[in-house]
Amino acid sequence: MSLPSILNIAVKARASFSPLIVHRAYSANPHFPCVDLHAARESRLRQSITQHPQITTDTGPEPPYARPNPATYHIYRHTHPLPLTYYPIPLPSFDIAYETWGTLSPSRDNAILLHTGLSASSHASSTQANPAEGWWEKFIGPGKALDTNQFFIICTNVLGGCYGSTGPSSIEPSTGKPWATRFPVVSIFDMVRAQFCLLDNLGIRKLAASVGSSMGAMQSLAAGWLFPDRVQKVVSISGTARSTPSSIAMRYAQRSVLMADPNWNNGFYYDGLPPHTGMKLARQIATITYRSGPEWDQRFGRQLRTLPKSDASTETPRIPALCPDFLIETYLDHQGEQFCLKYDANSLIYISKAMDLFDMTLPALEALNLRHPLNETATPAGTHAIHRTSHSKSHPPPVNPPPHLNDLAKGMAPLAQIPILILGVQSDILFTVEQQREVADALRMAGNEWVSYYELGGVWGHDTFLIDVQNVGSAIRGFLS
Amino acid sequence: MSLPSILNIAVKARASFSPLIVHRAYSANPHFPCVDLHAARESRLRQSITQHPQITTDTGPEPPYARPNPATYHIYRHTHPLPLTYYPIPLPSFDIAYETWGTLSPSRDNAILLHTGLSASSHASSTQANPAEGWWEKFIGPGKALDTNQFFIICTNVLGGCYGSTGPSSIEPSTGKPWATRFPVVSIFDMVRAQFCLLDNLGIRKLAASVGSSMGAMQSLAAGWLFPDRVQKVVSISGTARSTPSSIAMRYAQRSVLMADPNWNNGFYYDGLPPHTGMKLARQIATITYRSGPEWDQRFGRQLRTLPKSDASTETPRIPALCPDFLIETYLDHQGEQFCLKYDANSLIYISKAMDLFDMTLPALEALNLRHPLNETATPAGTHAIHRTSHSKSHPPPVNPPPHLNDLAKGMAPLAQIPILILGVQSDILFTVEQQREVADALRMAGNEWVSYYELGGVWGHDTFLIDVQNVGSAIRGFLS
Repeated sequence: MSLPSILNIAVKARASFSPLIVHRAYSANPHFPCVDLHAARESRLRQSITQHPQITTDTGPEPPYARPNPATYHIYRHTHPLPLTYYPIPLPSFDIAYETWGTLSPSRDNAILLHTGLSASSHASSTQANPAEGWWEKFIGPGKALDTNQFFIICTNVLGGCYGSTGPSSIEPSTGKPWATRFPVVSIFDMVRAQFCLLDNLGIRKLAASVGSSMGAMQSLAAGWLFPDRVQKVVSISGTARSTPSSIAMRYAQRSVLMADPNWNNGFYYDGLPPHTGMKLARQIATITYRSGPEWDQRFGRQLRTLPKSDASTETPRIPALCPDFLIETYLDHQGEQFCLKYDANSLIYISKAMDLFDMTLPALEALNLRHPLNETATPAGTHAIHRTSHSKSHPPPVNPPPHLNDLAKGMAPLAQIPILILGVQSDILFTVEQQREVADALRMAGNEWVSYYELGGVWGHDTFLIDVQNVGSAIRGFLS
Repeated sequence: MSLPSILNIAVKARASFSPLIVHRAYSANPHFPCVDLHAARESRLRQSITQHPQITTDTGPEPPYARPNPATYHIYRHTHPLPLTYYPIPLPSFDIAYETWGTLSPSRDNAILLHTGLSASSHASSTQANPAEGWWEKFIGPGKALDTNQFFIICTNVLGGCYGSTGPSSIEPSTGKPWATRFPVVSIFDMVRAQFCLLDNLGIRKLAASVGSSMGAMQSLAAGWLFPDRVQKVVSISGTARSTPSSIAMRYAQRSVLMADPNWNNGFYYDGLPPHTGMKLARQIATITYRSGPEWDQRFGRQLRTLPKSDASTETPRIPALCPDFLIETYLDHQGEQFCLKYDANSLIYISKAMDLFDMTLPALEALNLRHPLNETATPAGTHAIHRTSHSKSHPPPVNPPPHLNDLAKGMAPLAQIPILILGVQSDILFTVEQQREVADALRMAGNEWVSYYELGGVWGHDTFLIDVQNVGSAIRGFLS
């Protein structure tokens, strides 16, 4: 049978469909609910400003994204200048929001500083002041990975954030207006120094441990590097000591879509509407990097969303939509929608940039003029020899290490005497397992004999540290005990 | 030394910087050249419309993105309706733009149909009419992978495209205006059927081979599936038989940023300005999926761009920019900038959707009501037994295949008698090597004894098929000879 005749049969076979369908297929003005959502959100936000003029201040209406209630966390106000890695003049003063769990021992030696990922607040677990579930609820408490029977856990909102700590949305003292993009670029090291100002204020000279996942793992390593005599153990989960071009590319894509939102307005949106559409798009991209292909294969596969009854048709095949139709699309859409008004866009830009800039290779550190912390301390380390045996899982360093690994080993030398847990996940596409091995190798090459290295399987990718209480929790608990 | 005293020293040490720097750091209105670029492009486009009102037609100014000169390719105009996979009424008529290389033999049995990736035109290689370099220039010609001494190569712009074939930017016959998003969603199968209408017109009953990479590989498999008696060999390079949630997610992210561009206007932008910013952002995301981490590690590492002399400072460390600063960022920016006016946004949306929809598992194919081609042909296959030995590299099918692999094997049964080359690249993150193995396994499970499977190393990721002439070219040449 020739092709034209096959086509003709097909045409005839399909000619029995209703005129309604014909109309829908070719003549109606197409609707795009996923695009309309942006306009609807914009209009809702505009209306809320009009209806609540009482919240208008000198600098305009309060940014409409949700902020936690300041009564639910502590604020440490630092009134001295903080030197910054990349700027010649220090930040004149700053606030750090923090929460704590457990009890600080009389000798103040049982504190664990917990570092957050990019967009998390200090609310790692529920408290009396804020009973809402925290972002690491299952890991903090009596008998849990961070055991409050034994330890005093401190979690801060990072410098640059928007949940109570000073960041681009905070008021610039000299102008009385939000910093916006006049805020200086901050580094992971700056964030950690700000946290140690808080520790000083709390009278905590030495940490039992510095613990963090994702960006928090960068901070955790930086804490040990900056203050090796004040950090007894370091936990780095799904982190890196040197951001790769691939991860920079993914964060750059997020910043690009955000900065292209007209509402962003070069960062000066605090007296208007926030770039909620750009934030939604950025979060969708981020979400792709947080999970992994295998999980989505299992969880969503190629399933389509269930249509509302009004749209459902008995036709087969169903006419595909250009808006989210596959479950994986509705998942990304939902993640973006949930996030777009919950976090400050400028904080996202600044903190993601700080992650890009993080590089512990010696040449990079030398370029930063960060004074070498080992030159300033009389108690370099060696106080943890008791752990030498139990945590030693050293294997010989790689035979032919690539040049940057040598540089990393040299850069990380100040961490050589601190017991460190490096935990990575094989399905992580953002902080790949190769990067976890790199950190562990570099530490061992630097002479660290207390490196504990764990590599987890599973399908959850980067987000494993939020989900896998069993494996991540046990590794941490074992290492800290 | 206590932290405050360290900080004070640091403050003093940094106090010698010039007031100019202080001003730049904290008081100036920040500039974002990467954001200004969008506005500058918009203004340039608007100006070109004002200055050239003569190109304004009934439907407004000609879309300003570049189109190839219609004098440089052939057009096949099909005036009969084309049945569509997802719509109950057929496309009333359509054009297919195509180019050819080599000479059609008197018996018309030496034709190779070359399928393109998402955004490519029919210009795969230079011709007399268009001497510009084609997208597969190094693979087509005398003695090359597609040897024009032996074969007659045909490459088309796909249905849905914007380089001469009918797509969303084409005029809808019944309205006289561009289809825009009234254009029906098309499938990979529809694209292939349109191509076979062209083959009929050229009097080519049987193809020597169907060859394609990326989306072209999907088409290549679909051609063999739809017309097993008309395709003697199939080449699938870096393709898939079933789009995964991960690849759908990456394409969804691209469509989302595009559709959020206010210029997109629900797809009806042909009498105004195109969504050039959305296109740039979409291309940046796409570029991330086209290359691989290892290549970027080698090529860009963590290098920064060279600053223009006016911006260069002797300070160390250099103050980081929020606009592209790392070379990897400038690379993505450049890729987006180059592409954003070269391709029609709606074509990108429709064709990327067609890729998402592609699924050769039996249940998916059954839901499409695509008549089984084997029922319509009297010469099912077996004509190529001569290749059985030379191309047989079969290994036993997997012992415990996952359910979808069984479904894929059943769905691909019509391809069981066609010699097929499956070529994949280990560093491909978009069409992963696991998917290449899946296609090869499914074909073997379907009883195909002529599967040639190659897996390439290297760092180029998905783009390997555009770059690695040596390995990709040799595999194709060997398979076709």
